[in-house]
Amino acid sequence: MPSRETAIVFGVGPGLGWALARRFATENMQVAAIARDETKLNSLIQSEGGHDIRPYAADVSSGDDVLRVFDGVDRDLGEPDLVVFNAGAFQKANVLDIDPADFERCWRIGCLGGLLVGQAAARRMAKRGHGTIIFSGATAALRGSAGFANLAVPKFGLRALAQSMARELGQQGIHVGFVIIDGQIESERYRHLIDERGEDSLLAPDAIAETYLQLHRQPRSAWSHEIDVRPWSEKF
Amino acid sequence: MPSRETAIVFGVGPGLGWALARRFATENMQVAAIARDETKLNSLIQSEGGHDIRPYAADVSSGDDVLRVFDGVDRDLGEPDLVVFNAGAFQKANVLDIDPADFERCWRIGCLGGLLVGQAAARRMAKRGHGTIIFSGATAALRGSAGFANLAVPKFGLRALAQSMARELGQQGIHVGFVIIDGQIESERYRHLIDERGEDSLLAPDAIAETYLQLHRQPRSAWSHEIDVRPWSEKF
Amino acid sequence: MPSRETAIVFGVGPGLGWALARRFATENMQVAAIARDETKLNSLIQSEGGHDIRPYAADVSSGDDVLRVFDGVDRDLGEPDLVVFNAGAFQKANVLDIDPADFERCWRIGCLGGLLVGQAAARRMAKRGHGTIIFSGATAALRGSAGFANLAVPKFGLRALAQSMARELGQQGIHVGFVIIDGQIESERYRHLIDERGEDSLLAPDAIAETYLQLHRQPRSAWSHEIDVRPWSEKF
Amino acid sequence: MPSRETAIVFGVGPGLGWALARRFATENMQVAAIARDETKLNSLIQSEGGHDIRPYAADVSSGDDVLRVFDGVDRDLGEPDLVVFNAGAFQKANVLDIDPADFERCWRIGCLGGLLVGQAAARRMAKRGHGTIIFSGATAALRGSAGFANLAVPKFGLRALAQSMARELGQQGIHVGFVIIDGQIESERYRHLIDERGEDSLLAPDAIAETYLQLHRQPRSAWSHEIDVRPWSEKF
Repeated sequence: MPSRETAIVFGVGPGLGWALARRFATENMQVAAIARDETKLNSLIQSEGGHDIRPYAADVSSGDDVLRVFDGVDRDLGEPDLVVFNAGAFQKANVLDIDPADFERCWRIGCLGGLLVGQAAARRMAKRGHGTIIFSGATAALRGSAGFANLAVPKFGLRALAQSMARELGQQGIHVGFVIIDGQIESERYRHLIDERGEDSLLAPDAIAETYLQLHRQPRSAWSHEIDVRPWSEKF
Repeated sequence: MPSRETAIVFGVGPGLGWALARRFATENMQVAAIARDETKLNSLIQSEGGHDIRPYAADVSSGDDVLRVFDGVDRDLGEPDLVVFNAGAFQKANVLDIDPADFERCWRIGCLGGLLVGQAAARRMAKRGHGTIIFSGATAALRGSAGFANLAVPKFGLRALAQSMARELGQQGIHVGFVIIDGQIESERYRHLIDERGEDSLLAPDAIAETYLQLHRQPRSAWSHEIDVRPWSEKF
Repeated sequence: MPSRETAIVFGVGPGLGWALARRFATENMQVAAIARDETKLNSLIQSEGGHDIRPYAADVSSGDDVLRVFDGVDRDLGEPDLVVFNAGAFQKANVLDIDPADFERCWRIGCLGGLLVGQAAARRMAKRGHGTIIFSGATAALRGSAGFANLAVPKFGLRALAQSMARELGQQGIHVGFVIIDGQIESERYRHLIDERGEDSLLAPDAIAETYLQLHRQPRSAWSHEIDVRPWSEKF
Repeated sequence: MPSRETAIVFGVGPGLGWALARRFATENMQVAAIARDETKLNSLIQSEGGHDIRPYAADVSSGDDVLRVFDGVDRDLGEPDLVVFNAGAFQKANVLDIDPADFERCWRIGCLGGLLVGQAAARRMAKRGHGTIIFSGATAALRGSAGFANLAVPKFGLRALAQSMARELGQQGIHVGFVIIDGQIESERYRHLIDERGEDSLLAPDAIAETYLQLHRQPRSAWSHEIDVRPWSEKF
């Protein structure tokens, strides 16, 4: 009997992060869900219920926290086969209004966190010769729009990191993917937009999660590195 | 009982085109396979055997031929749910050595053909409010390398066409995808490269075909427009 | 005394093409101006007056026409040091409304013409080990917008061609440039937009022409291949 | 009599930074040259001699240092018309070997520094309604190559920042440029490469500096945002 796969999702809130954890659990993976706020994370797991998902609290911009999570998962669930970096922080502001401390904070969470998670994941996967690491990107990874420097700088950087990792690690059997999420993800807060724009006009978290899973399932003779997702009705 | 879907694949040789047709047939779709050379196409279908794939001969750069195929498929199998444009022609040459007639021929097959097929497909799909059109791209769609103008010009053009179509047709329910194939597709001719480079070092046609199918299966709340595929060991 | 340089500009109407020809003449180059309609070209030269610019009529999509022009310039002015391909044709239409004959015509003028002109120019320059070839691009060279496939397909293709040429010909001393013109070029027809948008809100042909000249003037240790130009007030 | 323009160059070593300062001084600008190491900067200015260039020591990743320089220049030379951000740090390493402290240090100098300098420059220019800010990019701004994450992450980020700034500040009369330097800049250390590769095969600092100056000289009806420079013989 093949052993169950282990997946770790960094950046689990009630939107995409949770949909990813749930989707992987449905595939019979053992799933670790990571968020900064332990209380919210536990309450999310309890309220959603019924899924075998194990919570770990960590600040992804802290090397110590990230290592503690990976060591814990190694011990509790086994070394990861699939790691998703979905953490991020964003404060919209024009460049002249940006607080440099905020600029740095967004980068430390959204890009330095990607390095810390990516290194810990890849070290484990390189030993075993296989594994998948997926980074969540955004339109802001391709374009620095007005008001979006605080998001674009970390997302451009995360894309650079993902490219270097893909080129360095592919030959060690590690599949590195970068998903460009273009549009608003469906949530309670934005549900009114669906009334305005029509059904399926926001990104359904479960639909995005399916694309992440398919990336992980690709055989190594035809790996995808970069893929975009957006609703049918999205202008782009 | 839901009726069977119909798929049309333009550009069917023994490599990716045939893998696509076969994969769609395995999904219980009714499949039309299009190639220029009817004899080769029939012999391919006979030698591979056992698949419910219907051959049609057409030159994709001929508007009459393309319409004849679509009319035939409408009648024989029903209007298409999925159309793949996988045709192309390429003669490697430096720009100073290119025969302009060849430059034009490569473009007429690889890009004008995409317009003719895309229009016929989209007209049928727009009426029904759904459908998927996928174009086969290549690394040469992103980069004009030395010696590759005869391929890069049609592939860049095809990518432009796919982008305009995605932006115009998404809101009519038509999913337009562009797959960037980066690397050598496995075939008898290139099988020796696997000995040199290692297992899975060439793109397996079946693995690529799976990615095309997954694009078609995406729910409309999270469609991908552009995706790359390459072997794990490929330099890029 | 160094001999005067020779410049050829393909695609000379009253806008950018004429500004290029005039700017090069001001630099003491001998200038050949090419347009399809000989009558309009002659009347433009007469009405503008005072510049030493020599007209030649040619359809850039005709190999015979293009060779005839180059042979004429060789004889009349000497082999070219600078060749600009600024020709193009565009009919705005959604993909479902495009007439394939129009799609092909736009490509033959805007992209095949680039090959024919580029080959004739590069053959002369390769012999002498130096020269500059500049292609006029557009935003549509980077993005296939809704309604713009008839422009984006040739402009994407022209960009692919320029890239292949730059990579093949740089080491033979030929500088190949691609200028991405983003925005509306100032002209009688669009002058009302300046009233709406403010001074300098349209691209001044003379200002663009200066950028083309600077590309030509770059020493070969630091050549630019791709550069964009847009008005200060342009959204992008 | 028009007053002299003021230029500030951040990141002045003996290569491109010094060439920029010298080129602007030759244009009769008042020039401030910024480097971290005051001793090296002073010795550079003394050994090169004869140029009216004023040194200021600053760590660009320190907000206090950057403000102190701008305040000093305001007082000593007047508010800047042209500001170049040319600072950077890079330690080549594969992602698995990167020290996160180094990753962060490279980003703080190469990207956070760009924000701090860009904000201080733009605040002064916005008041006066004109000015030019140019960021030095690199090939690594477009591509995360193997071994280059420590450079690509800050350069991708700097490009994102430059794009947001261009989109936000253009309408306030501020021209924001991003120069993609592709290849090795000529220096004592790399001069042996010229023997191998041939004359002009490395980027001449003076030639690059000319392109920066031309960006500054562009009239606002046709500004360039992004431009690449590479030697004629460079593979790309």
